[in-house]
Amino acid sequence: MAEQKATNVTWHAHNITREDRQKLNGHRGAVLWFTGLSGCGKSTIANAVDQLLHERGVHTFVLDGDNIRMGLNKNLGFTPEDRTENIRRIGEVSKLFADAATIVSTAFISPYKADRDLVRALLPQGEFIEIMVQASLETCESRDPKGLYKKARAGEIKNFTGISAPYEAPENPELVLDSDNKGIEALAREVIAYLTTKGILPA
Amino acid sequence: MAEQKATNVTWHAHNITREDRQKLNGHRGAVLWFTGLSGCGKSTIANAVDQLLHERGVHTFVLDGDNIRMGLNKNLGFTPEDRTENIRRIGEVSKLFADAATIVSTAFISPYKADRDLVRALLPQGEFIEIMVQASLETCESRDPKGLYKKARAGEIKNFTGISAPYEAPENPELVLDSDNKGIEALAREVIAYLTTKGILPA
Repeated sequence: MAEQKATNVTWHAHNITREDRQKLNGHRGAVLWFTGLSGCGKSTIANAVDQLLHERGVHTFVLDGDNIRMGLNKNLGFTPEDRTENIRRIGEVSKLFADAATIVSTAFISPYKADRDLVRALLPQGEFIEIMVQASLETCESRDPKGLYKKARAGEIKNFTGISAPYEAPENPELVLDSDNKGIEALAREVIAYLTTKGILPA
Repeated sequence: MAEQKATNVTWHAHNITREDRQKLNGHRGAVLWFTGLSGCGKSTIANAVDQLLHERGVHTFVLDGDNIRMGLNKNLGFTPEDRTENIRRIGEVSKLFADAATIVSTAFISPYKADRDLVRALLPQGEFIEIMVQASLETCESRDPKGLYKKARAGEIKNFTGISAPYEAPENPELVLDSDNKGIEALAREVIAYLTTKGILPA
């Protein structure tokens, strides 16, 4: 027999698994990946979903520009490489939260299919839920809460998605939300219904 | 009065706060930052703490080489700049988990005081708990679970902390764990006791 070198022979180590965390939380982890044009309602809907889930006792978190661009990704700009790295890091962090049995919502334009597919590939089957927030450019531009479209039209912002840079719509998103015609709460409840149908939330 | 432009007038938006999440979880969030030489027991103790906390119903997570170096930080090497960026990213992710009212343990050598202090500065007062895992170089080298010291002594690994690169011990860590003389479970319980004393866990 091999010599016992460990000094912690009386401690029965059991690294806590994702299944253990899911059992504690009472639900699975998942990534709700909201994507769509600036002003389409991504962040508002993501926060509404977060609120509804929280009220049901679900363990949640939201990643958005406020806590990512000022923190983890503050050393990234807006070059193509940096945009890809931005989404990659958000994807990796989302995966960690999903591993922790948290339902994490992300609200980033994420205009490129390849970047979103990279994130999908990081997650176990069924845990990446791509949610296309559909609103016409007209709707988004009329909302323009931060005045970004105005600046983009004036040429003050280069490579602005929908104006001077492409938005590659998802081909097979798990959900499409009609933000042109429906209100925030109705859309948020569509997401909750989806999560229940898929067994991520208990029925 | 200003014109009401929002279409979601019936939805009473309330972004869920860290206090809301703490209330749901029944405890505060915090970062348990384990630091020390390779082989000192950081990861084993971090996982033991995680296990004890989980058994008490505490919402936890562990960041370690397995889920960081293969994921979020897979595009970082071991240059001084990359080492600093490695710790910065881990710090930012830890902060997100603490915001989510999770007690997150990190197990990285993190040999440089300046890097650790940068992480401390990211967190609210009292939420960064620096835990020095104290073990003599002799102890660590005799354990050498991955054969790294042997390779470092043979010159096959450059800049190995404790052998060919410095370890800057914390000057004022919240906790010092004596891994030379105490077992895993006893040390893990010292961490639990600290968290209870500080009100991060309910008494």
